Amino acid sequence: MSDTRKTALVVSAHSADFVWRAGGAIALHASKGWHVHIVCLSFGERGESAKLWKKPGMTLEQVKKDRQREAEEAASILGATVEFLDIGDYPMRADLDVVFKLAEIYRKLRPAFVLSHSLKDPYNFDHPLATHVAQEARVVAQAHGHEPQVPVIGAPPVFLFEPHQPEQCEWKPELFLDITPVWEKKKAAFETMQAQEHLWEYYTRVGLQRGAQASRNSDFKITYAEAFQRVFPHVTQDTLA
Amino acid sequence: MSDTRKTALVVSAHSADFVWRAGGAIALHASKGWHVHIVCLSFGERGESAKLWKKPGMTLEQVKKDRQREAEEAASILGATVEFLDIGDYPMRADLDVVFKLAEIYRKLRPAFVLSHSLKDPYNFDHPLATHVAQEARVVAQAHGHEPQVPVIGAPPVFLFEPHQPEQCEWKPELFLDITPVWEKKKAAFETMQAQEHLWEYYTRVGLQRGAQASRNSDFKITYAEAFQRVFPHVTQDTLA
Amino acid sequence: MSDTRKTALVVSAHSADFVWRAGGAIALHASKGWHVHIVCLSFGERGESAKLWKKPGMTLEQVKKDRQREAEEAASILGATVEFLDIGDYPMRADLDVVFKLAEIYRKLRPAFVLSHSLKDPYNFDHPLATHVAQEARVVAQAHGHEPQVPVIGAPPVFLFEPHQPEQCEWKPELFLDITPVWEKKKAAFETMQAQEHLWEYYTRVGLQRGAQASRNSDFKITYAEAFQRVFPHVTQDTLA
Amino acid sequence: MSDTRKTALVVSAHSADFVWRAGGAIALHASKGWHVHIVCLSFGERGESAKLWKKPGMTLEQVKKDRQREAEEAASILGATVEFLDIGDYPMRADLDVVFKLAEIYRKLRPAFVLSHSLKDPYNFDHPLATHVAQEARVVAQAHGHEPQVPVIGAPPVFLFEPHQPEQCEWKPELFLDITPVWEKKKAAFETMQAQEHLWEYYTRVGLQRGAQASRNSDFKITYAEAFQRVFPHVTQDTLA
Amino acid sequence: MSDTRKTALVVSAHSADFVWRAGGAIALHASKGWHVHIVCLSFGERGESAKLWKKPGMTLEQVKKDRQREAEEAASILGATVEFLDIGDYPMRADLDVVFKLAEIYRKLRPAFVLSHSLKDPYNFDHPLATHVAQEARVVAQAHGHEPQVPVIGAPPVFLFEPHQPEQCEWKPELFLDITPVWEKKKAAFETMQAQEHLWEYYTRVGLQRGAQASRNSDFKITYAEAFQRVFPHVTQDTLA
Amino acid sequence: MSDTRKTALVVSAHSADFVWRAGGAIALHASKGWHVHIVCLSFGERGESAKLWKKPGMTLEQVKKDRQREAEEAASILGATVEFLDIGDYPMRADLDVVFKLAEIYRKLRPAFVLSHSLKDPYNFDHPLATHVAQEARVVAQAHGHEPQVPVIGAPPVFLFEPHQPEQCEWKPELFLDITPVWEKKKAAFETMQAQEHLWEYYTRVGLQRGAQASRNSDFKITYAEAFQRVFPHVTQDTLA
Repeated sequence: MSDTRKTALVVSAHSADFVWRAGGAIALHASKGWHVHIVCLSFGERGESAKLWKKPGMTLEQVKKDRQREAEEAASILGATVEFLDIGDYPMRADLDVVFKLAEIYRKLRPAFVLSHSLKDPYNFDHPLATHVAQEARVVAQAHGHEPQVPVIGAPPVFLFEPHQPEQCEWKPELFLDITPVWEKKKAAFETMQAQEHLWEYYTRVGLQRGAQASRNSDFKITYAEAFQRVFPHVTQDTLA
Repeated sequence: MSDTRKTALVVSAHSADFVWRAGGAIALHASKGWHVHIVCLSFGERGESAKLWKKPGMTLEQVKKDRQREAEEAASILGATVEFLDIGDYPMRADLDVVFKLAEIYRKLRPAFVLSHSLKDPYNFDHPLATHVAQEARVVAQAHGHEPQVPVIGAPPVFLFEPHQPEQCEWKPELFLDITPVWEKKKAAFETMQAQEHLWEYYTRVGLQRGAQASRNSDFKITYAEAFQRVFPHVTQDTLA
Repeated sequence: MSDTRKTALVVSAHSADFVWRAGGAIALHASKGWHVHIVCLSFGERGESAKLWKKPGMTLEQVKKDRQREAEEAASILGATVEFLDIGDYPMRADLDVVFKLAEIYRKLRPAFVLSHSLKDPYNFDHPLATHVAQEARVVAQAHGHEPQVPVIGAPPVFLFEPHQPEQCEWKPELFLDITPVWEKKKAAFETMQAQEHLWEYYTRVGLQRGAQASRNSDFKITYAEAFQRVFPHVTQDTLA
Repeated sequence: MSDTRKTALVVSAHSADFVWRAGGAIALHASKGWHVHIVCLSFGERGESAKLWKKPGMTLEQVKKDRQREAEEAASILGATVEFLDIGDYPMRADLDVVFKLAEIYRKLRPAFVLSHSLKDPYNFDHPLATHVAQEARVVAQAHGHEPQVPVIGAPPVFLFEPHQPEQCEWKPELFLDITPVWEKKKAAFETMQAQEHLWEYYTRVGLQRGAQASRNSDFKITYAEAFQRVFPHVTQDTLA
Repeated sequence: MSDTRKTALVVSAHSADFVWRAGGAIALHASKGWHVHIVCLSFGERGESAKLWKKPGMTLEQVKKDRQREAEEAASILGATVEFLDIGDYPMRADLDVVFKLAEIYRKLRPAFVLSHSLKDPYNFDHPLATHVAQEARVVAQAHGHEPQVPVIGAPPVFLFEPHQPEQCEWKPELFLDITPVWEKKKAAFETMQAQEHLWEYYTRVGLQRGAQASRNSDFKITYAEAFQRVFPHVTQDTLA
Repeated sequence: MSDTRKTALVVSAHSADFVWRAGGAIALHASKGWHVHIVCLSFGERGESAKLWKKPGMTLEQVKKDRQREAEEAASILGATVEFLDIGDYPMRADLDVVFKLAEIYRKLRPAFVLSHSLKDPYNFDHPLATHVAQEARVVAQAHGHEPQVPVIGAPPVFLFEPHQPEQCEWKPELFLDITPVWEKKKAAFETMQAQEHLWEYYTRVGLQRGAQASRNSDFKITYAEAFQRVFPHVTQDTLA
């Protein structure tokens, strides 16, 4: 019996990125019956686990294990599935195997849309790399000559979620998504991130600011929003508003 | 008995711009029961009526009359209403009266969206001026202290239609609208523009190119499309795709 | 007996802009003995006084009076002087008189730096106009042939304070100023803005976000910050850090 | 007996790119006695041969062979020579050997100018890679310490030919070349591309649109044109027009 | 007997701009038999005559007279004609009369190309205004309905000459012109500018730097060059190099 | 006894880049008691030693030796230390070892700021690579999980020094440093570069032009300056001017 749910793919450089940056979008689509699948390229084990590394006797394997457990718990709260490619971080490098593995996921999942990082980030070079790989794999999955026995995918739109310091990353909000109905889920999800407690308030405020801006750009009353940049033009057969 | 149709506003610098650049969007919304209202700031009498001026004995008044008749016919074919502010062209100048007149139209029409020109155009400075005035009037119409007895408007999105040489105008397609169902109307409308016959084929090809691109950016099969740039971020309470 | 304090000039389109966007910078410099002078080009009487206009029987004159009183109180709390050019808003227009009046203020005050709005703002065209006039007046005040009997000014740097939706205004933080020591003054100042109560929390969050970002871009621990964009390159005879 | 013809180098990511994007420029220069040499980094065997892959029993080797034959025929029609580096596509990767091989070609051919792809292309990451390698090899060929026994090259200008969706690739036409005299050759050349028949009409329309634009930017009457972006400033000892 | 020389138009905001920024281009074309005509919108009397204003008893009229004499002498050395519209400077304002006057000059001169200022200049707002007016007048001169009895012009390319601080003006060299053969004339011309002696060395160095860069971007050996940015794409029926 | 001097790190692609582009900043900080450490990724042996390669019998090893000797002499004149990673040039490639080696240097030196190349350079792809590696290593050195037994660094600002053709590299001066007091040292240092004598005058003029511009953007009188672009926003707890 095949799964007939609509699907979405999230490509996250480190194990927690998907929660801060797209947890609302993930929970919202899951709540509407979508299958959202998250691929974490790494656990953020070297670069985004400062608190864990302060514990005595900590090892790389233990950090990975702890971060994986947190990420799985967060994904579960959001209603999504998650897998880990474990390609390392700080700095991240991705060879052809990673591209082909992601292309395989694209073809299997056949996502209606893709979420990943901003195109630039001078604070974190793993982020633009993750997006580059996610995009390259999307194009490979469209190629008839790549694993020709497996059907190619169409042209799912790619949305870039919000980086930590948006203006420094040349990232611009082009789409606001009302996440008020699922805010409590996003909050619960990021509160599993014990290693990054200092970010809880920061991203609560991001949600409120984007919510206020979403209200100003529409006739809706929105409390919490997530913002996204588009990579490709939107196509519609409907009306413009 | 009030008009309960959804509404859209088109601000066109010259009398024919709305046809080439947004005729499909106009006809499409009209065909779905919208009231689309077009404001032509000028008739394009000086700068976009070369063919008429080649007739012997031509006068400015006659050119205006001819261009108005064509534009009214085109609007009628598209299913829209049209009015003319007659503020002159080449070069166009807009004083406060024009802003206030447009603000009045905004408040009366209460459009769900607005269409106007690109923000830059080194070939035609009337175009960015028209957009600037259209945007300024939108903001004035939002101000509680402007004509305080008349209800303010909300925040209708503004879309910029395609200029003649898009890359030179720093204009980028961010939204493709499938206009295949109304293509024959658009064609009939621009064929009323006897003064600009050389553009018929040009804009037929634009429609086909944008259609092909719309297909590549989606899983739809689209023959003719119009492309638009967004001024403000899109806000949604729905899904991302 | 002449005033030997260092001076700064703030050019604010509407009566409250200076509080939200530069209240911390103003209070900080005042607390260090600077004379900060604020010029409000308008009272924001038409476009930024929605709450007042909802009172029955309200008039333009009364709105102006109320907004002036609030702005004077806010300036007083911040420790600055304020004056109002009353040139109208929504839309704002500035003729040569405004440029010359501002040039006169430049020459009298001889500011060590200038604060004004972002260069673009699709939500509010009065803002970029205010900055344009502030900059044009600065250049006029540098001209030996303008009022040749009055000494010209040097080249005070111009900083652009934060607009409401930074990414949409193509504004980028290039300088973070720690305003933690004067935060209570900024808060007290913006709480005088009874007409815009909905913005209190919004700008508290802006202060906290910019504070967190300021910490990440330095080795300081900063709670509240204001962010600014530079118009001109910085010149130093000191070290680079 | 040495070849005294002027030379040009075209670096094409896939076997057909040179035809759609620069076939006119190639044929025009060939018709004026130039030796135009095309380097195809791959055959486009995996990503741009959809039609071939639909044939039963198709293999990678057969696709390559078919695409090579088409490309050789097209080059021959255009009057150019062509070679294939066969480095694979979708995704393309280029190691140092490719750079050195191209540098060798630069030094042997000593081209008066170079044509390659746009600097960005979110639809096709092989394209910007091809341009990057073409440019890197150009710089290596200028280095006195690279194969010091072979004479270095000068500074041939690099032109970027038109991508499929120009605005999405941040590509801008800076130079229009009238290809009307050789249009029939370009048409004949791209009609050899049986695998991509759907593009024949698309690129015929591109030629006509660029022709119309070329006419508007000059006092020439031009039917078909190709457009190029410059990488380096143009240098002239002649007049400006 | 009509003048059959090729013509070029230079639109200069202040009386000396044309010398520093385009003196080489002017002299070069004049030396090849062109008629180069310079329009100075103002004398730079208020903003660019600091040295004159330091003389006791100086008046606006005297400054204008002195600057006009210098500019006429410089134009004469360069081999060009010059006229002055005397519209004032710091700040410059241009009403419709200025646009129409320039349009008249365009139609009379029928220039093969146009030179004017950069599109932005935060140090000098008269400069971008001059370019804007020069471009607007060009478009008016193309309009069949403007003074319909006078023949319209074609589409002369517009080049933007180098501002004082190029990077701050978002100006980019796209075209280097070798002015070595006429350097002595340019030098003699700017040495007539007694009021701006401090700029002689500055612009000598600009000439040398641009010359060195011109050499690096070509296979020519160039000592002095002037750099220009293009407004419109170049169109050619010749080869690409 | 530990070294208590403040420190700065310079990452130079080739052995001479640091002299032309940052020699003044290096000498200035050294003269104020700083320890400035320079890392040359290569000797510029293949791409920037044209003069040496013209000598008969020259070998790669000899070129490296000569360039190293010059660079050491220049560093010594400037008062800095220098080391060479010898990773090759034209083209430069940097694997993980280079990133880790640089990260180790960051942690050992703990620089107060970092200097490196522009982000783009179409004339020299080694330059942006050097900056990329320098930035990536900075982020790795901040990661608690990288060599967890060694203390992480904070967030030293990164400044990009001036490329050879600034506008073509999309590099913009955001900070002018007065290097007049150490000009003679910079001059002496670059005069050790026998292999690149043609650049002495070029960079003397660069120093003078940037000095003149620094004066115009401040109230200082500056003869020689170096210009830098910032990667990260500046953070201050001081005043704005």
